[in-house]
Parts: sequence; structure tokens; C-alpha cells
Amino acid sequence: MSTTIYYGSVVNPVNLTSFQALPRCLLAVGATGCVEWLVEDVEDALVRETMGRMGCLDNVVIPLKETEFIMPGFIDTHTHAPQFRNIGSGQQYELLDWLSIVTFPTETKFADLDFARRTYSSVVRRIINNGTTTCCYYGTLHLEATKLLADIIKSYGQRAFVGKCNMDRNCPDYYVEPSAEASIDATESLISHIRSLDSNHTEEPLVQPILTPRFAISCSPPLLASLGKLVLSDSSLRIQTHISENESEIELTKELFPECPSYAHVYDSFGLLRSNTILAHAVHLEPHEMDLIAQRGAGISHCPTSNFNLSSGVAPVGEFLDRGIKVGLGTDVSGGYSPSILNSVQTASIAAKVVAMQAKGSKPTSGNFSDRQLSVATLLYLATLGGAEVCDLKERVGSFAPGKSFDALIVNVSDKGGNPCIWGTGEEEKGKAALEGMLERLLFCGDDRNIARVFIQGKLVGGTEF
Amino acid sequence: MSTTIYYGSVVNPVNLTSFQALPRCLLAVGATGCVEWLVEDVEDALVRETMGRMGCLDNVVIPLKETEFIMPGFIDTHTHAPQFRNIGSGQQYELLDWLSIVTFPTETKFADLDFARRTYSSVVRRIINNGTTTCCYYGTLHLEATKLLADIIKSYGQRAFVGKCNMDRNCPDYYVEPSAEASIDATESLISHIRSLDSNHTEEPLVQPILTPRFAISCSPPLLASLGKLVLSDSSLRIQTHISENESEIELTKELFPECPSYAHVYDSFGLLRSNTILAHAVHLEPHEMDLIAQRGAGISHCPTSNFNLSSGVAPVGEFLDRGIKVGLGTDVSGGYSPSILNSVQTASIAAKVVAMQAKGSKPTSGNFSDRQLSVATLLYLATLGGAEVCDLKERVGSFAPGKSFDALIVNVSDKGGNPCIWGTGEEEKGKAALEGMLERLLFCGDDRNIARVFIQGKLVGGTEF
Ligand SMILES: [Zn+2]
Ligand SMILES: [Zn+2]
Repeated sequence: MSTTIYYGSVVNPVNLTSFQALPRCLLAVGATGCVEWLVEDVEDALVRETMGRMGCLDNVVIPLKETEFIMPGFIDTHTHAPQFRNIGSGQQYELLDWLSIVTFPTETKFADLDFARRTYSSVVRRIINNGTTTCCYYGTLHLEATKLLADIIKSYGQRAFVGKCNMDRNCPDYYVEPSAEASIDATESLISHIRSLDSNHTEEPLVQPILTPRFAISCSPPLLASLGKLVLSDSSLRIQTHISENESEIELTKELFPECPSYAHVYDSFGLLRSNTILAHAVHLEPHEMDLIAQRGAGISHCPTSNFNLSSGVAPVGEFLDRGIKVGLGTDVSGGYSPSILNSVQTASIAAKVVAMQAKGSKPTSGNFSDRQLSVATLLYLATLGGAEVCDLKERVGSFAPGKSFDALIVNVSDKGGNPCIWGTGEEEKGKAALEGMLERLLFCGDDRNIARVFIQGKLVGGTEF
Repeated sequence: MSTTIYYGSVVNPVNLTSFQALPRCLLAVGATGCVEWLVEDVEDALVRETMGRMGCLDNVVIPLKETEFIMPGFIDTHTHAPQFRNIGSGQQYELLDWLSIVTFPTETKFADLDFARRTYSSVVRRIINNGTTTCCYYGTLHLEATKLLADIIKSYGQRAFVGKCNMDRNCPDYYVEPSAEASIDATESLISHIRSLDSNHTEEPLVQPILTPRFAISCSPPLLASLGKLVLSDSSLRIQTHISENESEIELTKELFPECPSYAHVYDSFGLLRSNTILAHAVHLEPHEMDLIAQRGAGISHCPTSNFNLSSGVAPVGEFLDRGIKVGLGTDVSGGYSPSILNSVQTASIAAKVVAMQAKGSKPTSGNFSDRQLSVATLLYLATLGGAEVCDLKERVGSFAPGKSFDALIVNVSDKGGNPCIWGTGEEEKGKAALEGMLERLLFCGDDRNIARVFIQGKLVGGTEF
């Protein structure tokens, strides 16, 4: 595979408040799947000259259509692969009832490897085709099924973090690990298995293990302590868990850990709150918890669809951002009813507007984001580069720059692409403003039909044209 | 066309708190497009015998697939056909800015009939394929373009109410009617035109005119008075307008009509608040306005996606229902960014949960709906029969009963139907509970790809199998 060169519009996130809308880019992807170079604003007539200047006269140029643009792939910082079986059901419950009535009975079925294979093969395909190039997966508590999940992800070529739930208490008899030791043993086996998948790689492998204490309630102190010991000597090992999703959950957590001043302090006291920890939800954090999270450099996976759907609440994302806490988006299927980060974007926009509307009339904050709606730039950032930060992958993915991986989507917002909810831009002027409009329409009206091609590390792995 | 008989699952709304989930129904649709009869729970082996008993032994039976069910078509009680051009843009604005920056500049282009034809042909097709069998359309202020809109709807066979905006003040110079007289003249011409489309019909025609004062701000008192006179002698003529969407809008309305005790009283004082008036939004109604609306029997079009998107607020739907006010759903494109009532259902669920979460901890109300989330039964009702009530069409559409029109969808929730967000029910047990689960998944995860066939007055007019 030699250098591949695309010519067309590129959308490139820069920071929380800005992105580049670049019509007429030349973007080169090298044999290793990384971006080699990017030249902005190349007129048609100057394409060959530019190619020559870059020493690529012999390369084929792949032109994008007028209704297409390249953007970084979406990063889903929190989802549950086994729960896809329940997607769109159980919306009448709150968290703890939902777990015992909807979730645990389904997750226990993944002891059956055929069932797991059938399910996960379909789940991962769906997630990729929705444009998610990096995904943080919760599996079940089962070692073998979770190994299988990692194998399937690996075979599809997705970038992912895969974890097996640690849960040795406060779960139903039929779905709980027998001991902290058993939980740790299985976790170590999963880590070895996943790390063996890419043993020849010198690069950071696509599929990586992640520690997954389900949530504090389901983990005994010895289990949390052992997990803490496990990560102590392994700085690259990510951790994902839930935090402060629901009021009853918080109350129970405080009862179980009376010595900890807050939910976040529980994880911190076991060494599990660090710069590569992903905290899902964070709906009801107290200010001193936010301080602690910011200090540790941990990231938050904002899962607004789930938070509305399970009546958990509305996470104050603007406040997180003002405090410098890293934030990405999560679908949290099946607490959330959509596997698409586009849906998370729309609901994140709603959530921020709810916060802003509630704050209306009160004293304005001095922050840039608190009590304000999220701009297109911020929403884009959360869906891409923000997620990369949360996954401790910011140097590798989430935007385009020489040396970063080409984890990308070719998006097509044509109104002839099958999605009847989108209106194309065919009749409007071209240029930066039109491209910005195309991005906004994608974010608010797009679905998987607009994701024409999905690339991970330069390789085509999904999309409608896959 | 003789009697057509379907055999399979049927979902039938009953009231705000219940629906029938009926596996194995025989449902007969007569030559006039109305339901003739419906027999519940017919075992496979008894189909022929039942057909015989109903005198239909010679009729062909059309069997539904395991993953299919029949349900009433969706009713969109509020949308703007011309604004589809702006769908998914302008989410950063609130109402009054959004009108002047995003909406009016687009609507004015519909003076061009070619542009109007091209746009409306596509808009109506999209709305039908999203499963909307009855739709309340705002056009622009242009008579000819709105006549064209009605013609196109008529040619596609959709049930609809079509109105031309009345707006003779407080609008930009380039997009305003020259006088109240001109506005009324054009309105009367539109009414005649639409009524002439179905002149041979003895039945209530599919496409009907509707009075459409844009909102109180844009209508001079003489214009409102003339509209009031117009409906006085015409009890079947529906009225649609906006009410109490946004705080700045309410303030301006009160300034313009200082003699009226509330926004609702403005419409009432001109005779425009009656049992076939459709009031879009109603986000910030005062209690005495709700009393008045209930007393007049007017209906509310709840447009939650729009209300979030334009930061308008959250309409207290539960309180409306407790007060006995009729409520249906509206997409309000392009205040809302989706033409699908399924999206409205999901966002209505979110809106009700936001209200319920805010009320948490406060004194519980005595109502059945206030401060509570909406059940699947209630969401289904709002999307179908509730909408029919709001349109004053409850005897005709919104549910299935002998004599009612067969305005229906054949829905397919198979996970092989192309929508990657839905998970089929193929592996689960059949029966009532499974059918209820299929409905819930459709409402939360479905999209146009799950709408296999759309029938209006018995005639196939859209869907993926159209
Ligand atoms: Zn979760
Ligand atoms: Zn409207």
C-alpha cells in the first residue's frame, strides 16, 4: 500500500471552540495508515503542480464528490456491547431497577459463546458503520465472551478498548463473580489475550485492554485494591467505570464506602482515578469531586441520551469544560437507545440547552461554557478530539495532522443518499461557509446512510460503500 | 378494489394510558379504504374458518411477516413545508432571530414556482415515507406556491391540512403581505382552490384548507378580525397558529395586544380559539390560558425537538393532559431538525423526563400525567390518536375500528431491514409481550427504513416497499 491522496473538503477539529472547514484540500495518507501531509485550498488547476511539489506525481488522486467531506471518525467513549440486545427497551426504569430487570438477565446469556459470537459480530459491524472508529466497550463479566468480543473487533479492524466487567458483590446470584481473586485472574487473562493479538506490532495496537470495574457498588474493596495494584505498574492500561449517574446509586455508594468523602474519592482511594480513567455519566458530581477529577486528569464520558432515558439527570458539561476536565461522548447502549454518536451529539446539544434554559435569569457565570449552549465546534470536538483526549489517544486520533492515524470518515450529505431527513447542499455556493453548513446538517440530521466510508489507520473498514 | 384482508400483528391505540397489542389479527379494509372488521387472536388453523364466517372466503389474505405489525399512521400536527431547505441549521438562534436570519430569507424564495415545485415534491415524499399519514402544513405567504403544495399533496394521496401564512406586519419588507385585505383575498382563493380539488367527493376530502395566521405578532388586528369572520360561518375550517413558544415572542405579543390578558386571549378575542384550532408549542402558558384553551376545546401541537433546538423551553405536556387539553405531536421543521414523528416521540419522552426530574422532591401532584414520564401507551397515543383529536379527525383516523379510514403503516422491525439502530425480535417468543416490545423499539430506535408500507384511506402511498 503506497501513499493514497484525497482531494476534496476536509473538516478538522482544532479545539473546543474552533474547527477548520477546508474546501479543496489535498490530504495524503501513507502506507502505515498515518496522515503524511495536508495542503489547504488547492485550486483544481493547481492539483498536479502541488502533487509534484510534494513528490507524489505518480500517485493517484481520489477526488471527493461535491456533497462529500472527510472528517475524523467518531469516538464512542462508553458503550456496552452485550446490551445491544435490549436497545430501545426499558425506558420506564431508573438505573438500579433497569440493571436488575433489563440488563443483568441479558448479560448473563453471554456465558453461551455462540450467542456471544452472533451478537458481537453484529454489534461491532453496526458501531463501525455508524462511523465510530474508536470505541470503549464494556463486555459482560465473562472472560471467554469478552475475549471473543476483542477478537471480533480485531478482525473488523476497529480501534477499541475492551474490558470485562469486574463485579463481585451486590449483583444477583446468577450474575456475579465468585470472588475478587477470580475477577482479577480473569482480568489478567483478558489483558494477556488482547495484548497477544498484536504481538508483532511496534505501534500502539488497535485493540487494547481496559480495566472495567462495573461501578463501585459492584466491587468489593479487596477487588478495587487489586485493580489498583494492577494499574500501578502499567501506566498505559486504561480504566473505565461509571460514576455518579443516579441519585440512588450515589446514596448506596456512600453507604458502602462511608470513609470516602465522595464517589470520585472511592476510585481515587484505590488508585483508579488517573489521567487515563474514563468516567461515564458524572451527572451529579459535587464541586470537590470535580476538583479531584480535574487534578487527576481523568476524563468524563458524557452520555446524554442515556441520562435522559433512564431519568438520571443532566450532566453539567459546560462546567466540566470550564474546569478543564476532558469530556467525550458516549452512547451507553442500552441505557441510551442509539449506537450512533450523531444521536449523542444531538442529545448533548439538547442537554446543554436544558442547562442553559434553567440558568436563564440567574447570575451569568464567568465561564466560557457553563450555562451556555454548545456550538457546532464544541459538539464536533466532543465527538472526535475530546473523545480522543478521554481515551488518552489525542496524539494519535481525533483530528488530522502529519503523523496522526488516518481514522476518518468520508461523509456524504447528498439528499439523494437515502436518508430522507437530510437536505443536500447541491444548490448552494461552495466554499467554507457551505462546508460548515454541511457539517451542521450532518450533526443534526445525519445517520449511518451518510457515512460512506470508514477508515481506521488508513484502512477502509466500513460505511455504505464498504 | 374489493376488500383486502391482512393477517398478522396489529397495534391499536385506545386512550392515553392503553393500547391493544394484538398478535394474529384478521383486519379487513373495504373498497372505500375504510376498516370493515377486525377479528383478534385468530390461530393459523382458524383463518379460513374465520374468513368464511365473515363472508370473505374468496378474498386473498395478505400475511404479515413475524417482524411486521400494522399500526395507525403518524399524525404530524405542525410542520413547515418550505423550511425543509433549512433543516438541521440555525440551532444557535432563538425564535425571533431564527425567523429573521434563517427562515424568512428562505421562505421568500417560494415566490419562484419552479423552486417551490422542486422543493415541495421532495418534502411531501419524505414526510410520507417517514410514516406520516396526516400532516398539518404551513406553506409560505405565497398563494400560488401554497396551491402547488396542496396539488402535490393531493397527487401523492396524503391526508393533510394546508395553509398559507397570514402575515401583514412586523415582518421584513421583502417578506410581508401588503395589507389585511390582500391576505384575506389570498386566503379565500386558497380555500376555494383546495376545496375544488375534491369536488366530487361526498366524503370529507383528504386535503383540506386550514387558516394559518403565522402568529399574533405578524397579524394586524384587522387581519385577525377578518380571519375570525371567515371561520364564523364555516365550522369545519380548521385554524393553525403558534402560541407561547418563546419568552421574547410572548413579551412582544403582550405589548402588541395590551388589552388581552394573555396570548391565548388574543386569538380568542378574534374568535380564533375553538375546538378545531391547533396551537403549536404552548411552552410557557399561564394557568388561566390553559383554562381558556381547555374550555374552548382547542388542541396543542407539542413540538419538543423544536422547543429544545431553539432553546424555547419545555412544554408541560403532563399538565395539559391532566387538564383534558388535547395534545398531538409536531415536528415543526425546521425549528425541529427531523421530519419524523418517531424523533418527536423520542424527544417528547425526553421532555417529559426533564419536567419529571425537575419536579423530583417537590410535592407530588394529584394528576395522572403531570411531573411524570410518558409511557409507551401515552407516546403512541400522542403520535396517532392524540394528533387525530387535535386535527378534529378522531372519528376518522388515529386508530382502527369499523368505519374508520385505514390510514396505516406496516412496520418492519427486523434487524435485517437496514436500520442498524434496531435489534429485531426474531429470537424471542411471539405474543402480546413481544409485540409490545417491538412497538417500544420502533418508537425509540426506528426510522423510515422500518416503515415498509404507508396506506392512506386504504391506498398504498409510500414506504420502503412502495
Ligand atoms: Zn454504562
Ligand atoms: Zn412552527
